[in-house]
Amino acid sequence: MTPADPSDVLGRLHAVLVERKGADADQSYVASLYKRGIDAILKKLGEEAVETVIAGKNPDDDALVRELADLWFHSMILISARGLSPAAVINELARRMGRSGLEEKASRPSQTP
Amino acid sequence: MTPADPSDVLGRLHAVLVERKGADADQSYVASLYKRGIDAILKKLGEEAVETVIAGKNPDDDALVRELADLWFHSMILISARGLSPAAVINELARRMGRSGLEEKASRPSQTP
Amino acid sequence: MTPADPSDVLGRLHAVLVERKGADADQSYVASLYKRGIDAILKKLGEEAVETVIAGKNPDDDALVRELADLWFHSMILISARGLSPAAVINELARRMGRSGLEEKASRPSQTP
Amino acid sequence: MTPADPSDVLGRLHAVLVERKGADADQSYVASLYKRGIDAILKKLGEEAVETVIAGKNPDDDALVRELADLWFHSMILISARGLSPAAVINELARRMGRSGLEEKASRPSQTP
Repeated sequence: MTPADPSDVLGRLHAVLVERKGADADQSYVASLYKRGIDAILKKLGEEAVETVIAGKNPDDDALVRELADLWFHSMILISARGLSPAAVINELARRMGRSGLEEKASRPSQTP
Repeated sequence: MTPADPSDVLGRLHAVLVERKGADADQSYVASLYKRGIDAILKKLGEEAVETVIAGKNPDDDALVRELADLWFHSMILISARGLSPAAVINELARRMGRSGLEEKASRPSQTP
Repeated sequence: MTPADPSDVLGRLHAVLVERKGADADQSYVASLYKRGIDAILKKLGEEAVETVIAGKNPDDDALVRELADLWFHSMILISARGLSPAAVINELARRMGRSGLEEKASRPSQTP
Repeated sequence: MTPADPSDVLGRLHAVLVERKGADADQSYVASLYKRGIDAILKKLGEEAVETVIAGKNPDDDALVRELADLWFHSMILISARGLSPAAVINELARRMGRSGLEEKASRPSQTP
């Protein structure tokens, strides 16, 4: 399997999700979530996190990948609903990596030394 | 701010997280999570999801971005702990997007038509 | 409103939930959850927790009470599914209260002194 | 083991939690949670729910009971923080039980008939 370019996928997905803001809520799952509001979006994100935790306790790798995709998908919907961009999250992740890897002290200040 | 290349960031982060499997658990937060096992990793992922939900109800965009970064960061730790790769998740997201955007019917089969 | 006797309510609810183990899954929501298994029960419990968190950020007290009732209801289903009793949970709560109130040091050993 | 009277335990616990509103946040875990505010309380409730889900996937019954006690304990803190009473939740559970058991249709209106 040739991996898809993550940059392209997250960027394209974000563009599609932003576009869905003008879509018919009867035709589009994403538009219906926007219409139902932030609580509905957060509820779905939380549900997918619970399903990811459960899948993380089970041996099926494919099921775990699907739950993680659901979790990231609804993270992306939250990002677009709030008028943010996935680049902000990716940049925050990049900020936590230094030139030579993860700057763990900087990224996890609450960690007991 | 020039956005970081998501492809590069997720790929590099994954490489760093895999490398941390051999690190000293006393020196590395990530290594300590691996050592504590899957329940500890899933607990952290769930906690970050709860914090994302709470941040999603608050107006502070920067705080929400940080919580999403925490959530994705711990998703990435789960991925590496299970011997998977972020490309699998990204490919699943790509699969749900058709040539002309999101194939919502295919990706959300449980949605009432 | 005369408050229901909690002892009676939790005890009677537990008895009903145990009884539902023999019910038709097509007729009973609880029996259908048992039939779908522990993952389905845990997923529902997690969902209700997420909804409780969201309701906790909103001003509607009645909605919060309903979400807490959903959360405790699915906790009770988990208890019966595992062959446990609510008395075990209540006793654990009682154990954490000393003669003169909450023994916080004993109950929260991880709390920084 | 003689089970504690649930009525007494929840009622007494609620009284203690309400009393803690005037306590020193440096001396009392509960008072420190009140002081940190609703987000801190909801975060803890959500964390305990995640730990309950994980414990629900593991075979240790005692650990599950402890997590459920943590979940109910923080539910009780949320109830007191919002100026509510556990009787409201218990009454809602009672309302969902009819004279002859659980009125499943009434209590779960979203269930497919």
